[in-house]
Amino acid sequence: MTNHRRTKIEILAVGSEMLTPYHLDTDSLFLTRHLNQLGFRVSYKTVVGDDPDDLAACIRTAMKRSDVIFFIGGLGPTQDDRTREALASALEKGLIFQQHLWEQIQDRFRRRGISISDVNRKQAFIIEGSDSLENPNGTAPGLWLEAEGRTIVLLPGPPRELEPMVLNRVLPRLRGMREGFQIRRVLKLAGVSESQIEDRISDLYPVDSQDFEMTVLASPGQIEIHLTAFSELSEDDAEKKLTRPFDAMIERLGEDVFTVRDEELEDVIGDLLSKEGATLAVAESCTGGLLGHRITNVPGSSAYFLEGVQSYSNEAKIRLLGVPPSLLENHGAVSSEVAAAMADNIRAGSGATYGLSITGIAGPTGGSKIKPVGLVYVSLASPDETQTEKNLFLGDRISVKQRASQSALDMLRRRLQRSQRGKTP
Amino acid sequence: MTNHRRTKIEILAVGSEMLTPYHLDTDSLFLTRHLNQLGFRVSYKTVVGDDPDDLAACIRTAMKRSDVIFFIGGLGPTQDDRTREALASALEKGLIFQQHLWEQIQDRFRRRGISISDVNRKQAFIIEGSDSLENPNGTAPGLWLEAEGRTIVLLPGPPRELEPMVLNRVLPRLRGMREGFQIRRVLKLAGVSESQIEDRISDLYPVDSQDFEMTVLASPGQIEIHLTAFSELSEDDAEKKLTRPFDAMIERLGEDVFTVRDEELEDVIGDLLSKEGATLAVAESCTGGLLGHRITNVPGSSAYFLEGVQSYSNEAKIRLLGVPPSLLENHGAVSSEVAAAMADNIRAGSGATYGLSITGIAGPTGGSKIKPVGLVYVSLASPDETQTEKNLFLGDRISVKQRASQSALDMLRRRLQRSQRGKTP
Repeated sequence: MTNHRRTKIEILAVGSEMLTPYHLDTDSLFLTRHLNQLGFRVSYKTVVGDDPDDLAACIRTAMKRSDVIFFIGGLGPTQDDRTREALASALEKGLIFQQHLWEQIQDRFRRRGISISDVNRKQAFIIEGSDSLENPNGTAPGLWLEAEGRTIVLLPGPPRELEPMVLNRVLPRLRGMREGFQIRRVLKLAGVSESQIEDRISDLYPVDSQDFEMTVLASPGQIEIHLTAFSELSEDDAEKKLTRPFDAMIERLGEDVFTVRDEELEDVIGDLLSKEGATLAVAESCTGGLLGHRITNVPGSSAYFLEGVQSYSNEAKIRLLGVPPSLLENHGAVSSEVAAAMADNIRAGSGATYGLSITGIAGPTGGSKIKPVGLVYVSLASPDETQTEKNLFLGDRISVKQRASQSALDMLRRRLQRSQRGKTP
Repeated sequence: MTNHRRTKIEILAVGSEMLTPYHLDTDSLFLTRHLNQLGFRVSYKTVVGDDPDDLAACIRTAMKRSDVIFFIGGLGPTQDDRTREALASALEKGLIFQQHLWEQIQDRFRRRGISISDVNRKQAFIIEGSDSLENPNGTAPGLWLEAEGRTIVLLPGPPRELEPMVLNRVLPRLRGMREGFQIRRVLKLAGVSESQIEDRISDLYPVDSQDFEMTVLASPGQIEIHLTAFSELSEDDAEKKLTRPFDAMIERLGEDVFTVRDEELEDVIGDLLSKEGATLAVAESCTGGLLGHRITNVPGSSAYFLEGVQSYSNEAKIRLLGVPPSLLENHGAVSSEVAAAMADNIRAGSGATYGLSITGIAGPTGGSKIKPVGLVYVSLASPDETQTEKNLFLGDRISVKQRASQSALDMLRRRLQRSQRGKTP
């Protein structure tokens, strides 16, 4: 582990709109992710409004405690955008008009057929001694300067302006200062709970290592384990630190892991179906279309997804899916018998390789003692068999729907992986 | 407008996990929303990790510049949870063991059948002179103290612990200090772009008033205008400041406004259908189920939503919806003729009052010069007529799907509102 003092990094977001209840801060997450890859950790994040005194106070604090300071926002043309001016004044530096920036800004307006106002001139000023950072998606250039032993970077607030500037202008310059190498891996799981996972892998976590980090994120029906390893020496060294716990987790968690890539369960299904040359049709009751929606979020899904039926009413189950009325009368719409009939019949009717069905009670009403809210049957009709699973999901209507769709996709995923594994000798 | 100095409020979030790329900060948005209602504005938000020196530095800064400081997180039982200790040390106050808190914590573990470890004792200590704030959803009590002329509040990080504590313990105590009254209203619109909206209402915005705030939020197919008025005197006075611009916007924007409540387009549809005693069925191609998913997100939607068909393939359009093959051959699946047939036939087949259909090209592939990606036809079959609309949506696959579902719901919404308005004399 490192002994020398690490670079203190601060992110300072400027703008009163960021202190309202509306602003979800995604810029700093983006920046943090990329800084982490260069071995940097963020020590402080500060958000401050447009008040000039508050902003000045934050600049003084940041200059005292941090080595690298990223300002986000406040580079616009309005009176409220004061980052440039406030920083220049704190550093006792002048603002210098740059004719070539002004021409670029005017050009940009001209190309978009908008008349330019004089307030935009403000954006053509840079702080004395700074370099401007090109902004292909907006009028405000970024700025980079070294002052009082600090590295200071000014970035525009809109993500579509900030993100390419970080990737193309900022990271290349930071690479020379990199503090280390970081490798990140993810394992995504379905069909298991967070506490089950923690029980199964807690002993694999290298407790004493400050160069290894594990973050577990849970969402309805899904667990993500993010592993990060850090090395001062090289990417290979970081990789080496990650490999042992990563491989051990993969082995321990087995087929509960649906991917080790940055993809969703529906992407995995898509790949598996494509590999098999198979097709899919769905029949949804309580999910109302969510299953088909997720499947068709994948580009190219029309190659394997044929059709679906949202059989919300009993009449629809009878008319569109051919579920026998007697089955509905004897077992009720939420039953393993009806789930299986829905899966079998959508498969037969569509001619798809697989038929996948969901019937359940999403709530908040409609539950009973015998069939409570959260009771969901999921069924998969395959060429050789029809499997049906009973689930009791917790949570509100939206999360029951989410969990139900996840459970159906995961049932198909496990079946496809098993049969494809069976084929490889 | 206020002349006296306003209370400076700072939110200080503690925990290294909040400086990772994973942490979306929702706690501070929740807290901000409720503080705003008492007339308070947040001046600073700071995020700091578990490093004791960094934390101490942030506490010193906050004590210098802010009147009310909310700490979020770092109250847990582990070594990394240091908020209590760091603050006590900064204030040069002792930590006092509270037997009754320790008993409450032990009780909580006992009730859940978990054995308690000694590390949890830490959570039974409070800072000298502070009041503990009950935490019914966790073991860490909050703390409230007045020190060095500041009001300091310590809150636990998990939202399900923080939110009830803010509502039940913190806001009642803050009400006595309130700085004013805030009224908030929202207008939600569909079928219009952000720039169109701004052109139509820019002159209604009271430019000089610092007691009036407008925030425009845009998401695919939807614009939200949030209006906030502030008064030092009374809720009525704030209401009065809001009424004129609010009413003027409502009048100017007319039926493009689908709600002035905190609800979604699908909720509005649900109310309108219920009021009319009408039913709905859908036929979706490129949205793959999203339309039905949104409709069935509304509790009680089974009263009016009968069924849907996700007719992704041409075969499904023919078999499940009875679209004539000649129509598909002559006009293509993405055409106003096929959209209308889908809407008519799902309406006729299901016996629903309204049939709503979507057919289009979500991309990224499948487009052509004549039928580009983003081309979407939406059709509504009503008892007396069938309307079809052609749209060309920008954005990626997911946002084309979202915009298409929004456009279909909005077509139905306008029709329902018009026919219900027609009935009232």
